This record gives sequence, C-alpha cells and structure tokens, in this order.
Amino acid sequence: MNKAYIIPDEWAIIEEGFDPARVPASESIFSIGNGYMGQRANFEEDYSGKSLQGNYIGGIYYPDKTRVGWWKNGYPEYFAKVLNAPNWIGIHIKIEDEILDLNRVDVLSFRQELNMKEDWLKRSFRVKFNSGNILDVESQRFISMKRKELGVIKYRVKAENFSGKIQIAPYIDAGIKNQDANYDEFFWKINDIETEGDQAFINSETLKTGFKVCTAMQNVFTLNGIEFRPEKTIYKKEKSLDFQYNINLSEGDELILYKYAAVTQSMNYDEKDLKPAAQKVLNEAVATGYESLLEEQKTAWQKIWETADIEIKGDIKAQQGIRFNILQLNHTYTGEDARLNIGPKGFTGEKYGGSTYWDTEAYCIPFYLSTKDKQVAKNLLVYRYNHLDKAIENAEKLGFTNAAALYPMVTMNGEECHNEWEITFEEIHRNGAMVYAIYNYVNYTGDYDYIVQKGMEVIIAIARFWQQRANFSSDKNKYVILGVTGPNEYENNVHNNFYTNYLAKWNLEYALENLERLKQEFPVDYQRIIDKTNLTKKETAQWQKVASEMYLPYDDKRRIFLQQDGFLDKEIRPASALSPAERPINQHWSWDRILRSCYIKQADVLQGLYFFENRFDKKDLTRHFDFYEPLTVHESSLSPCVHSILASSIGKDDKAYEMYLRTARLDLDDYNHEVDEGLHITSMAGTWLSVVQGFGGMRNFDNKLIFNPKIPKQWQSYAFKINYNGVILKIYKSQTETIISNLSDETVTFYLNDKEVRLNGHRNIQL
Amino acid sequence: MNKAYIIPDEWAIIEEGFDPARVPASESIFSIGNGYMGQRANFEEDYSGKSLQGNYIGGIYYPDKTRVGWWKNGYPEYFAKVLNAPNWIGIHIKIEDEILDLNRVDVLSFRQELNMKEDWLKRSFRVKFNSGNILDVESQRFISMKRKELGVIKYRVKAENFSGKIQIAPYIDAGIKNQDANYDEFFWKINDIETEGDQAFINSETLKTGFKVCTAMQNVFTLNGIEFRPEKTIYKKEKSLDFQYNINLSEGDELILYKYAAVTQSMNYDEKDLKPAAQKVLNEAVATGYESLLEEQKTAWQKIWETADIEIKGDIKAQQGIRFNILQLNHTYTGEDARLNIGPKGFTGEKYGGSTYWDTEAYCIPFYLSTKDKQVAKNLLVYRYNHLDKAIENAEKLGFTNAAALYPMVTMNGEECHNEWEITFEEIHRNGAMVYAIYNYVNYTGDYDYIVQKGMEVIIAIARFWQQRANFSSDKNKYVILGVTGPNEYENNVHNNFYTNYLAKWNLEYALENLERLKQEFPVDYQRIIDKTNLTKKETAQWQKVASEMYLPYDDKRRIFLQQDGFLDKEIRPASALSPAERPINQHWSWDRILRSCYIKQADVLQGLYFFENRFDKKDLTRHFDFYEPLTVHESSLSPCVHSILASSIGKDDKAYEMYLRTARLDLDDYNHEVDEGLHITSMAGTWLSVVQGFGGMRNFDNKLIFNPKIPKQWQSYAFKINYNGVILKIYKSQTETIISNLSDETVTFYLNDKEVRLNGHRNIQL
Repeated sequence: MNKAYIIPDEWAIIEEGFDPARVPASESIFSIGNGYMGQRANFEEDYSGKSLQGNYIGGIYYPDKTRVGWWKNGYPEYFAKVLNAPNWIGIHIKIEDEILDLNRVDVLSFRQELNMKEDWLKRSFRVKFNSGNILDVESQRFISMKRKELGVIKYRVKAENFSGKIQIAPYIDAGIKNQDANYDEFFWKINDIETEGDQAFINSETLKTGFKVCTAMQNVFTLNGIEFRPEKTIYKKEKSLDFQYNINLSEGDELILYKYAAVTQSMNYDEKDLKPAAQKVLNEAVATGYESLLEEQKTAWQKIWETADIEIKGDIKAQQGIRFNILQLNHTYTGEDARLNIGPKGFTGEKYGGSTYWDTEAYCIPFYLSTKDKQVAKNLLVYRYNHLDKAIENAEKLGFTNAAALYPMVTMNGEECHNEWEITFEEIHRNGAMVYAIYNYVNYTGDYDYIVQKGMEVIIAIARFWQQRANFSSDKNKYVILGVTGPNEYENNVHNNFYTNYLAKWNLEYALENLERLKQEFPVDYQRIIDKTNLTKKETAQWQKVASEMYLPYDDKRRIFLQQDGFLDKEIRPASALSPAERPINQHWSWDRILRSCYIKQADVLQGLYFFENRFDKKDLTRHFDFYEPLTVHESSLSPCVHSILASSIGKDDKAYEMYLRTARLDLDDYNHEVDEGLHITSMAGTWLSVVQGFGGMRNFDNKLIFNPKIPKQWQSYAFKINYNGVILKIYKSQTETIISNLSDETVTFYLNDKEVRLNGHRNIQL
Repeated sequence: MNKAYIIPDEWAIIEEGFDPARVPASESIFSIGNGYMGQRANFEEDYSGKSLQGNYIGGIYYPDKTRVGWWKNGYPEYFAKVLNAPNWIGIHIKIEDEILDLNRVDVLSFRQELNMKEDWLKRSFRVKFNSGNILDVESQRFISMKRKELGVIKYRVKAENFSGKIQIAPYIDAGIKNQDANYDEFFWKINDIETEGDQAFINSETLKTGFKVCTAMQNVFTLNGIEFRPEKTIYKKEKSLDFQYNINLSEGDELILYKYAAVTQSMNYDEKDLKPAAQKVLNEAVATGYESLLEEQKTAWQKIWETADIEIKGDIKAQQGIRFNILQLNHTYTGEDARLNIGPKGFTGEKYGGSTYWDTEAYCIPFYLSTKDKQVAKNLLVYRYNHLDKAIENAEKLGFTNAAALYPMVTMNGEECHNEWEITFEEIHRNGAMVYAIYNYVNYTGDYDYIVQKGMEVIIAIARFWQQRANFSSDKNKYVILGVTGPNEYENNVHNNFYTNYLAKWNLEYALENLERLKQEFPVDYQRIIDKTNLTKKETAQWQKVASEMYLPYDDKRRIFLQQDGFLDKEIRPASALSPAERPINQHWSWDRILRSCYIKQADVLQGLYFFENRFDKKDLTRHFDFYEPLTVHESSLSPCVHSILASSIGKDDKAYEMYLRTARLDLDDYNHEVDEGLHITSMAGTWLSVVQGFGGMRNFDNKLIFNPKIPKQWQSYAFKINYNGVILKIYKSQTETIISNLSDETVTFYLNDKEVRLNGHRNIQL
C-alpha cells in the first residue's frame, strides 16, 4: 500500500485510482461532519471489502462494560463509547441483478475529492459489470453546517453502454455495530420503523443510556434532468428499511437520486417530537432543494475560513495539510453546544471511545479561542463546569473528601471511563489543565466574569484536590506528590513529577489570587462562592502552605528541573542513538524497558515551560530544551507541536521546522500506519499551534497579545487569521516582509517583535 | 453464614448440619488429592445449589486467551489455566422419579468428615423426599495415594421408611467448563465414548494443548451385603455416559455402589495406550476391592505422617489446623514427577490458574525438604532447570541478550502467563528465589552434585539477567535496579527495592563463588559448563563489578535499609491507626492510594532479612522489624509466617504467636471470605514454617542444622518431625522440657540452643 497517495492541492483532498487496501484509510481522511454529527467516507452502495462503518452523533454514547485482566479497586465499571449510529447514507444498487460493489466489479476509474473550501465529498467512478455493462457514477454528499440535523447525497448514475433495469434502493439501517465492542454486543434497540408517503423513519434507542434517535430519509429522482416519481416498493426488515425502485434505463440515460436524511436525537427533543422534527428537516430540505442547500454550505464555510484560514505559499503540501486540519477540527466541534466536546478521533473512528481528554484544554482551546467567537471556547469551559459534581464524585471514589474534584482522564458525561490504574488514578496533571484553560481563556478574552460566575468553583475544587493529594515529606521538609504519571506516559507511578508539582503549586496560587481579587472586586459573588463551597480560612492557609513549600526536583549541576525524582539514575542516551529498527519503541520494546529508559513520549518538563514560558528566560528554556529534546521520541502526536513552538522561541529554527513536519501531514500521509482507525483530531490543533504560536510567535500572557513572526526557509510566505475579541487580524509573513492587518473596524493593541502597536481598523502595519 | 463451622478434632475435619450457603466453601475444605490429581468435595449426586465443580489433573492446562483492558508490548498471549477435567464422581439418583438433590429435598441430617490420618472423605445424610420417602446415604471416597490414577467411591443408600424403585446412574462426563474461562469457551473436545462390558470410557482432549485424557469407570453393587449384578441401560450422550440401574428396594434395604474410576493421561502414555492403561487400573482395583484399597490408603498415609506430623497439645484447633495444612500440601504435590509443581490453590480451585509462582521456591521447598526424601525438593528444582530455555526465551522477549534468563511470574510449562506489566515485567525478584532455592537445597542436603549437574546453568543464566538489568547511575556512582515490584506488591515500578537489589547482588556473588568452587573441585564439569554457556572472563568480571557496587537504599538516621528509593517521602503511620472499616485496604482503597501509602502487603525488606538472617545480628533484625512490621497489613497470606519466624528469633514471642494465628486456620475458619474459590495451599507451607522455623527455631545456614525451640504460652507442648538427609528427628517442646529424638539408626549432628549436639540413632537429648 502506497502510504502517501493524497494528491496535493491547495483546497482539496484528492484520491485517484481505486485500491481496496486504501479504503479504510480514505474512509477516515475523507470524513465529513458538522460538530453535531459526522460520517466516515463509507461508500453509499454496498461494499464487501475491508471497511470501518462509522456514523457518529455528538454526545450519544454507550457504557461498554469494562474489560480488564486484573481488576483494581476504583476502576470504573464501564467505558463510555461513541456509537456507530444508524446508517443514513446507504443505497443498494443492482444493474440487471448484479450488485454494485466496488470489491466485486471491475473498477475502470475512481476519484474522490473532499473539497475543503465548500466542504463536500465527491466520488466519481466507472465500473464494468460481469455482463459488460458499464456504469458511470458520481456521488456528492455533505452534512449541512447550517442545518445540523441534515445530510444530503446526490447520487448520479449513467448507463454508459447498455440499456436495462437498475434497481436502486436507498435505505436507513439501525442494525449496526461498534467494531470495538468489548463483548461484541449490540448497542441499539429498534423502537419502530415506519413510512409516511415518501418518507421513512427508524426510531432507535441506545441500550442502557436510552438515547433516542430518529433517522429519516426522503428521496427525489431525476432522469436526464427531469424530476420524476418512480414506483417504490417498501422493504421493512427487522432493523432497516429500504425503498426499492426499479427503473429502466436506456443507453446514455442519467439517473440522479437525491437522498435527504435527517437525524434528530433526544438530547434536543422530547421523544414524541423526534419524528416530527425529522420530518420538518426533510420537508424543508426537499423544498429548498439540493443545489440551494449546497450554496448554503458554501456560504457557511466562507464565514469559517474568513476567521480561521492559514495560507502557506511555496509549499503546497503544507498548505493542504494545515487546511485539512482546520477543516476537520470544524467537523468535530463548532461550539454551540456545551454538552459536546472534542474526541481525539472526532467523528472519524471508534478509537479512544470518542471521549474527552485533557487534549481539549491543553491543545484545542487555543485553536477555538483564536479562530471563533469567544463563546465557543467558553462552551468548552462550561462543559467542565457542568461536570464539576461528577469530578467531585470521582475524587470521592478515590478517597478524597471535602468536595475536592478530580476531573476524569476520559469521559463522555463527566464520569471517569479509563481503566489503567497508572493513567486513571495517577495521571492527575489533567486536573491542572482544567484550571490552565480557564486562565488561558480569561487571559485572551478578558472575560473575568467567567471566573466570577463559574470558573472559581472549579478552581476551588481542584485546589482542594491538590492540597489533599500532596503530603508532607519529613525527609525532604517539603510537600511532595507521590505516585503520579506525568504527560510523559512512558513513566508510571513516579514521585514528584516536575510538571505535575509545578502545575499543582500554580493552581493553588491561582486559586488564592482569584479569591483575593473576588473579595476586593466582587464581594457579593465572593460571599456567594464562599458560602456555596464552605471554604474556610484554615483551608486557604493550608493551600498557601502547600504551594509555597511544594518540592520541585532540580539538578544543581545541570541547572534544570528534573522530570521526576530519580530521573538521573537512568542511563542517559540520546534517542538518536537508538537503531531505527527499535523505533517506535512502543512497538518494539517491552513496557518495563520503556519505563526504565530515559526516553520521553511527549513534552513533560517542556510542557510546563511552554505553559509558563513568561516565567522563564530564554537561557532557562534553552538549557531544558537541550537536555530533554534529545531524549524525546515523540511517540505521541501531541509532542512535536510543543517542541516546535519552544524551538522557534529559542531560535532553533531548523528544529522548529523539523518538529512542525512531524505532525503537519500526520493523517494525510499516514505516518503511523493507523489512519484507518480515524484521524488525530486533537493533534491537528497542535499543528495549528506550531504555525501560529511557533512560527507566528503568537503569545498571550498578562493580557497582552504578542507576535514574533518567523518563517521557515522552505516557505515563500504564510498568513494566518485570528479572532481577537471580535477583531480579525491577519498576520502575513514572507521571507522579507511582516504585515499585520486589522480586518475589522475597531482599534486593537498588540506587541510585534516586543514593540507595542496600536492598529486602527482596516489598517496594516508592515515591517 | 457461620464462617467458622468446622468442628475441632485432632485428626479430622468435620462439618455437621446442612447449609447450602456453606457448600462452595466446604467443597474446597474437604478436597482430596494425591499429587497426580485432585477433586473438590462436590457431591456425587445431582446438586442444583451454588457449587464450583472441580476435578483437576496435574499438568493439564489450557492456554486461555489473555483478556486485558489495554495491551502492553510483551504481554503473553495467553494465561495457562488448570482445567476442570472430566467428572468421574457423578452418580444420578432417583427415588420413584424424584431426583436426589440436596438443594431440593428436605435434609434431615448431614455430616461430612475428612479423615486426615487415613485421607478419605465421608459424607452421611438423611433426606426426606416430597413423597415422604426417607433415604439414608453414606458416601465415602478417596483418591489413592498408592495407585495415582485411581479414585474410588463407596456410595451406600438405605430405604429407611419405604419400598420402591431406585434409579441409580453412575456416570462419567466430559461436558465440563471452567468458571473462570475468559471467553466462556469449552476447553475440551470429546474424541470418543465407549463401553466394554461393565466398563465405560471417555477419551477427551484439551483444545489447543492437545492433552489426552481417558476417564473410565466400573461399578460394583451389593444389596444388604451381597454382591449382585443388576441390569444396566447405557445412556451415551454427546459428552457423557451413564450406566443406569433400576433396582427395587424394600424398606430397610441397604444398597452399596462401589464406583471405581481411572484417569490416565497423555503425559504418561501414548494415546493408544490410554484406554488399556485405564482398563488395567480398573481391573486391578476391582480385583483388589474397596476395603483393601482403603487399607492401602491408610498405610500410605501412615508413612507420610511418620516423617511429617506435627503434634500440638493443649490447643485442638491449632492441632487440627496444622495437620490440615500438611494433608493438603500432600494432596497437591508428592514429588515423584518433575513436570508438576504447586499451584497456589493446588487442586482445590481455578483461581491463579493452578500455575506455579515463586511461592514454591520461597515457601514450599523448605516444607518438602524437611518432610520428604530429598528427591522431592530436588524435583521442584529440576522443574525450573527443565524450564531454563523458556526462561531464556522470556528474557529475550523483554530485550535481554546472551542467554540471560527471567523465570516467569506464573507458569504452567515454563512460559510466562501473567499479564499485569507491574508484575509480569517488574516483579523480577522471583528470579532470585530460583537461586535461593538451590542454595537452600544444597545447604540442607549437602547434595552439591545438583549444582554441578544442573544448578550452575540456572545460576549463570540468572546472574546474566541481573547484570543486564542493573544499570550504572552516574548520579549515585553505583549500580541501580530501576522499575521493579518487590515482594510487597502494594508498590509498583519502584527504584532500588532493597530486597531485589540485595538478592541480585547475592545471586551474582553466589554465581562467582560456585564458579570458583567448580573450577577447583570439578574442573571437567567446570569446563563443560563454561563451554555450554559461553561464559567469558569479561562477563564474570562485570558480575563482580555490579555485585560489589550494587546500591542498597539505607537510612543513616534510623540505621535501616529502605524498602526502596523515596520510601521516607511517604507519610509514615502505623497500620494500627487505620480504621477497621478501611481494612483490608485492598478492598476499601483505590489502587493509587494504596501505592502511595506506607502500607506493606507482605514482608519485603524483612523477607530479605529472613533469607539471610545469618548475616544480620539480632539488633539489626529488631530495628528493621520495629520499623516495618507496624506498617505491614499482611494482606497476602504469605506475610505473617515470615514475621512470625523473625519475631520468634528476636524474642517477640507474643508477636510471633499473633502472626502465627493469622494463617494457622486461614482456610478452616475462612478468614478472607473466599475459601469457596479454593484453599491457600502455598500459604499452608508458610504456617508450617511458622511452627518449625518460628517456634522450633530450626535454621539451616552454612550446612548446619540449628534448633532454638520456644513454645507459645497458649500450648502445653508441640512436637514436629523432620527428615534430615534420611534421619528422622522428632523435636518435642513443652513448657518445661525440650527433647530431640533421633528416630533413625544413623548418628546426626545439629545445634541446640547454640550448642553442638551429636546424637546417635534412637537416642534423645533432653533439656
């Protein structure tokens, strides 16, 4: 299989030629979605080759019973899994009793394109049946960004060299499974299947969680451009429903099926309203018509690109890669609904259960913060605020008291799902990211009201966690945090992970600082929060003590923070000394060998320095980078971006570009041989960060917006846009010029290469 | 359920009265076995209540596909499981169409007894059917210690108040399952079921492993003492075979069924010979007759008790407990076959897969060494020698080279089966126990030839492992061993576990010492071993270096070795400060909390001091004991014995007795509410150690046999016997006297309370 088969193009993802071995990978890459739901690029017609069927609806999950080898006390009983939802794209096709199945017929030509500017997927192919009949097919489909519950397909077939019968049967089907089901169970039950005129409906319901979904379709036909209504036969089966049409085609005839599909679900409607709502979606869509719906789609995406586009000149693959990332991030999360979040694979696969990780807070929030209205990032914060009670419950299960909160490592509804003790119970630094995200948001937007109304409660509950989680070491005469896993998951159950301890200390200080500000500036709210949380002076005094006496492992000789206690007992050998046959080590080394090695999966100490870069000088950063980067194997897709940003910052431009390249086309070129399982959605935000924070040098500390743009020598120019509290700024950088344009009416202040700039609306500054 | 329901008796385990809730526990406790096979005390007749059916054949296992939550590189693909083997005990009984099932009839009386002196199980009960018919039943069975492949049952029924038809159907059945099958699969296939005259045979075969077993039966009847041959009907089913007999009983009639069963298996025969062998067992057994077979059983056990008995006067429960342990250890392993070993549950349950752990080397070998001919303990060593190639393979899988060996944590055939990374990959101290067992054996028996012929190769391969596993810490300027789990499994992935490092250092030194001795005393063998192992001077020089520069964590202030690096960062609180509601912590605390606590599951540093007690003075021992014992929660049944022995040694007699009590009747009184899953066989050896090494003060360092007997104040007297290279010594201790008797002809030398004693045959020494 040729790994890198995507044809470079500025605005499109293109595949030419049919190769069954590529199908599962392309199904991921050509995925579409609109934040409400998503659909892998499975073929509409039957396909008997290797495929991962995937259609996902945001928020709908199933609690799959945990499977472990050895149960540990405290493990969650289930793993919430994103569900493969009822199929709305399917169309069975037969030509004279031969099934159209690209795995069984002779594929004469095949091309598919995901148009990124307008966000539609088009597939064109010609096939020859055993009979010699040649059929020419073009399908185009999209999930509407404007009408969230609508998916539409235009499926055109042309009888190229024959006259004869075509049987075409658009269907909806709830007889679907998750490939990753732990016990191979069905997750859906079907409540009823019904038809009403030209419309068909399946009302299905998830087992255990009881989410109800109505999947509906209506079909419109044209023959040689003329709308017509062929006779239909209804095939109602146990779990699916086909509308079957038998149509006689003459040679050269062009038949188009417009399949309109609606998906409504019980998070948004009462059960009884699901069908009427779906009906309304269908009625309006059919009335609007396919081409007008497509126009809407173009318009919606024009608006998205206006504030989110990155242009790269002189490197078409880089251009394609970054737009692909922005596209897929928008497929995954659009920010209207605080009940939804960003799964590491978005709506493109089942892996990681589609659940929420700390990726959202650490990597995704800056992307949404800079490319969308602030409400979008705020909704991601509100998601965690709404889960605060569950986080408190989670901490209680682990023995914490007094409403301390531990946010889950992996979750769908706020409950912990993960079941490796070294992660679930020990990778507690995630709790710090929750607070960091609030800090980040308030820093960027100035929306302090969020802390007043919601954030402070989260901050308090997390401070309580850290205070209880630390213990006083009489040996060190300091507070220590024992038994953790840091961001570098190639270490487990370590003591005094620098990143964790530093973040804990900062969390406690940030809590105290905000309490003080609230007390001064918002006394009424302050009192409300104190009352609600029963916070005492004794408690905050203890926070102060733990924060100020927090132990941070440090090596006096090298003048660096140590990743954890005992790190220097390891044999320190650069990753470059490893033989290529051993890489990636997670596929070649046993787990214990990885653990006791010095090799780092992803930025750990450096992640801390990245978060708090304003507190360290360039020499500090350089010393740490020079020690840790050579030991880092970057076997997490979230690692290179942090290194790229820091390398840019300390003037290691080649290293910055090298790190940027490691994820720039991770999925498009399938670096890790696993794109068939789904896209690395959260890592895409990391690549965006490499460009905007790395090359663009954008920072946002102390409520200042800062740019220090650089450009890789491999590029002619690049430009990105950001939304800074409603002002759209375009930052353009070529090998010779730096231009920042204010595309809005309002005046904006920022720092460019360490100088303050006040830029009026519709003005540029050029260096 | 009344937990402690076993009636105290010096030589018997007795249960009175029927309680369905006790059935699964009693099935474990009343288990029988002969080292070749074992049988839980399942009822012969049908029983529809809760039960764990278990019949096990030594060495026969199934590789059950591993089930884990998250796969780690290096995990074994399967877990070898002891198999529930075809049922040979079953007898269906109907009285006038009512099934005899103690769960469905009115049980008027019930008593069962496991006679420990003679090793048979007898069950007597009276039941009343719905019809009012009262049946009086007595069944007695045993698995022959002399004829390993034979099990026999005498099943007597008496029609107490009725005349009528009894249908009695002895059967054999291969349609059995393991309750702990990971994927609920059948592990057996049936090759054929056949009858020949009065004999029936099922030839079955384990899936995947292909072990073949022939299970056979023959039945003999008497009515009121007169042998007779009732008509039989043969019911051959898919997986089982019944011989059905319909017999008319008159009131008062006594019908006895003698069921003879043979179990032959392919580890001992060619496939074609399995049935003839089973036939021979049956023919000889039937010809010998039940009562004579029972006499044989008594004689065999008389011999066992002659060298293994412990008598305790003044504490009948202690007497019952210790004999029960000796009995069950002999049910599990008798030492003729070096392909077999000691599963933690013996032949009494499915848990832990029936596989071999380091329990054998650390706890069981001293028992077998002292109570049997030396060949028995030697066979346990040979078991590991025969697995050396697999241990080398296992180490290779984890990245070790040069024929280094890592013995498995859990195994059936030498391959690793366990699948928790923190155990499988990290609990490497087990490797040290393999060498310690050799040392122990040679020390006791003086059989240095074992090292010359076999042991040295094992010692070399393990030394190679330690040398590679340690790495030089430039920070400490010492060799360190990172990422291990010590005997205290409430710590994972720690650095420089004292026990592990000390054992590794000693292993290396012991290897060098033996190489030197071989070179001097056995130059030809020396050269043979050097050639076979390709051992170089450079390598042994490296061993020397690692051994002499091995880091051992030590606290100068407290003058104790630390369990591992960073142990003093923990909050040190005695276990006595825990609330009873939190105990055992492994059922009440989440795993991370256990890990970062100071609480110790089982002797760890103290295990090391116990193994090398001759290298430490009493003050050293006391300091360590006083620090670690209060932190120890003894949540492994292997913990108290080591503490009991050390406490005796340092004069903490009350503590020694308290610790002894913690396992003395672990299973008989079901301390842990889990005896239904099977008995704690290996822990039974630990209790034996508490008496013999603890109270008896028996030691065996530097080829000296040492006794320092004490007696708990709760006892009148106790006596134990040991087999010291063929000489049987009886050590008697009362509150006033110490008597050691030499029961053999030969003169023996030992140390009593630090004085050398030379004792001629059939003489006593009395203090």
